[in-house]
Amino acid sequence: MRVHHIGIAVEDLEQAAAPYLHLGYHLEAQGRVEQQGVEVWMLRSEQSRLELLKATRPDSAVARFIQRRGPGLHHIALVTPDLQAELRRLAEAGAPLIDPLPRPGFGGHRVAFIHPRWSGVLLELVEEVEAPT
Amino acid sequence: MRVHHIGIAVEDLEQAAAPYLHLGYHLEAQGRVEQQGVEVWMLRSEQSRLELLKATRPDSAVARFIQRRGPGLHHIALVTPDLQAELRRLAEAGAPLIDPLPRPGFGGHRVAFIHPRWSGVLLELVEEVEAPT
Repeated sequence: MRVHHIGIAVEDLEQAAAPYLHLGYHLEAQGRVEQQGVEVWMLRSEQSRLELLKATRPDSAVARFIQRRGPGLHHIALVTPDLQAELRRLAEAGAPLIDPLPRPGFGGHRVAFIHPRWSGVLLELVEEVEAPT
Repeated sequence: MRVHHIGIAVEDLEQAAAPYLHLGYHLEAQGRVEQQGVEVWMLRSEQSRLELLKATRPDSAVARFIQRRGPGLHHIALVTPDLQAELRRLAEAGAPLIDPLPRPGFGGHRVAFIHPRWSGVLLELVEEVEAPT
């Protein structure tokens, strides 16, 4: 298992990106996940990605996170080759799944979140879906 | 630039590690950084590392972080080939350096921290020092 990206809750995408661009990251992709109420800037450098998340609605999870804790580190996303099987395995082990079934995430990947009460950190599992060529 | 590790502040190392071991991480190294007042378990899976940090003193930065925010995501560490040069470049750009000079970090690497007011996240820069063979 490897880290797909690190999610960071921000208030201003451009301002938040500037330090990372200075450190050598580049903007790999931009977009929205309407279901989650977020606007995303995915920054990339070599194999590492930082996902800057800005809330688009006051009731989105990211908006509530920022209200409670301020901007900052939000989640870790880990790659799994078979998300459905991994979710089944985790459910059997008693992990508190926020998404018992895969759902579409940013970039068209299949994703599911695990509640932070399991590991102290909000975890996202990502099954990468190849972009159509 | 790539991510060296993700730092996670925890109260109990064994308990905090269990979910990640379940997900396929293994314990790569354990130790203490006395200057920082932390006990460290470094978890590894493929190219990704999670650094579990437990405070060994009530006045350590990690203890104060947990008092303020609870356990959770603490910092991102990025690899740089030449830390001294990178710190000079960042200082000239006005980045608020916690460590203006490299200091010894966990695993014998040279490290320096950048204040979270720069990017909204506590950043660590790591110049990897090869372990003696």
